[in-house]
Amino acid sequence: MEVGIVGLGRMGLNMARRLALGGHRAVGFDSRADALDAARKDGIEVALTLDELVSKLAHPRVLWIMLPEGRPVDGTITILRPLLTEGDMIVDGGNSFYKDDLRRTGELLGSGLYYMDAGVSGGIWGLKEGYCTMIGGPKEGFEKLKPLLETLAPSGGYMYCGESGAGHYAKMVHNGIEYGLMEAYAEGFEILKASPYGEGMKNSELARLWNRGSVVRSFLLERLEDAFEKEEGLDSIIGYVEDSGEGKWMVKEAVDLRVAIPVISEALMRRFRSRQQDPFAEKVLAALREEFGGHSVKRNPGK
Amino acid sequence: MEVGIVGLGRMGLNMARRLALGGHRAVGFDSRADALDAARKDGIEVALTLDELVSKLAHPRVLWIMLPEGRPVDGTITILRPLLTEGDMIVDGGNSFYKDDLRRTGELLGSGLYYMDAGVSGGIWGLKEGYCTMIGGPKEGFEKLKPLLETLAPSGGYMYCGESGAGHYAKMVHNGIEYGLMEAYAEGFEILKASPYGEGMKNSELARLWNRGSVVRSFLLERLEDAFEKEEGLDSIIGYVEDSGEGKWMVKEAVDLRVAIPVISEALMRRFRSRQQDPFAEKVLAALREEFGGHSVKRNPGK
Repeated sequence: MEVGIVGLGRMGLNMARRLALGGHRAVGFDSRADALDAARKDGIEVALTLDELVSKLAHPRVLWIMLPEGRPVDGTITILRPLLTEGDMIVDGGNSFYKDDLRRTGELLGSGLYYMDAGVSGGIWGLKEGYCTMIGGPKEGFEKLKPLLETLAPSGGYMYCGESGAGHYAKMVHNGIEYGLMEAYAEGFEILKASPYGEGMKNSELARLWNRGSVVRSFLLERLEDAFEKEEGLDSIIGYVEDSGEGKWMVKEAVDLRVAIPVISEALMRRFRSRQQDPFAEKVLAALREEFGGHSVKRNPGK
Repeated sequence: MEVGIVGLGRMGLNMARRLALGGHRAVGFDSRADALDAARKDGIEVALTLDELVSKLAHPRVLWIMLPEGRPVDGTITILRPLLTEGDMIVDGGNSFYKDDLRRTGELLGSGLYYMDAGVSGGIWGLKEGYCTMIGGPKEGFEKLKPLLETLAPSGGYMYCGESGAGHYAKMVHNGIEYGLMEAYAEGFEILKASPYGEGMKNSELARLWNRGSVVRSFLLERLEDAFEKEEGLDSIIGYVEDSGEGKWMVKEAVDLRVAIPVISEALMRRFRSRQQDPFAEKVLAALREEFGGHSVKRNPGK
């Protein structure tokens, strides 16, 4: 079938390529000229404006948005809306907050347009292995999307998760779990490095070993194996860890639901800590130990 | 080659079977008559005493112990030691603390016996898929064990980790990571259950989906898929979670090394909490809120 992909970044471009390879007609749009050039080089048909993108597709159209969450998605929908007609479909395939889906579904009520949310996992491996895709929105919209999903996902790798927001909700939980998994591996390898046995074991060999028959084998541990193979000690990498929105939403959601998720919360906090130099809380701790116990503190020589 | 397996529990028996299937002569011993019967039924040659086990093996012997850590292993070594002669080898393949390996290596110094530690992962899936095996002890002992390891492990699934204790150390870290991974999945599925979308998504379907192309796919998530398929809501299972020694050793080791492993520590603490009914700390919290803030507490009607 036909699909317009809005946003030709790492994810969008590879998804367009996978869909085109699967026999669909994928037309791409991006506001950045270099992204359009890259797409053209990969043999993807492109449009220079959203207007042109819509006009290149036959009704009923599917416009699949792969943009950073929030304003970029809302801005795109605002432009698309008057260009689309009853029966057309907008899919937000980025990492959006599920409450934005609920709001947009409300805003599009009565327009005759379908609004679907899609949580897409797979990273840069998706092109080859397929994208695990979680879909929310009206069931009939899901049915219409199936031919694309069959191509996009690996076998059995897509699912109708429920009404509007359900796909992004499942993706949010997926990413929260991912934070916890990553932190568990990170802590394990840090203990090993600090241990008397650390020097005798290569990280890459241990990761490779554990991927062969152990209980902790996983896709993430395979990626870690690759990383250690490139650089055993990760010396060139600074331990400054960004987060996208979903870890934060997951922890806020836990607070709203009054559900304890200590490990996922801690994994998020560890990322915040990784971005601080000499955080104030640690100055407070050192100062308090001095005040009540007379314990010596390390002084900043310049101050 | 020949090997005597001491301890024919879940792990030991399946390892004996895998070794026998691989063309080795595996002779088993267990102090429990029913374990011996089960082994015989599986076609495993058995000995009724450790004495008999040793006498059934030709020098140089390999005695592979698969028993609960601590006294059972030490007791077995005490009995075996006078029965063995220079060049024989004892392998502790259970989940032992690495400092016990160091002590035993010291105790066996000058005996001419090899003492090797083996961390073995794979659970009940090891029979079919092979056991991921981490070996510590003298390198030359490792070389002698290789024919057994080639059969026991999946392809590439064994590793020489270093001097005495290194195999169990690596296994300890492996299990610590496992605690963190398990807790991350557990928290994710709890949030989903509590969420407004929970009723619309079957846990088994989501686990299966995520195992198809998502970033959180893993061996553990496949097992969770199996568990949810047996029972979607796990209603027959009480959330009382035991721990074996290794999670505790891992956290103590982190304290000794002064390395922060908040997620693995928290995963262990969650298991402790799961075994408490109305813990005292939570009474203390409720009482303090009443004392300083006049917040009402729930009263135990019987007291």
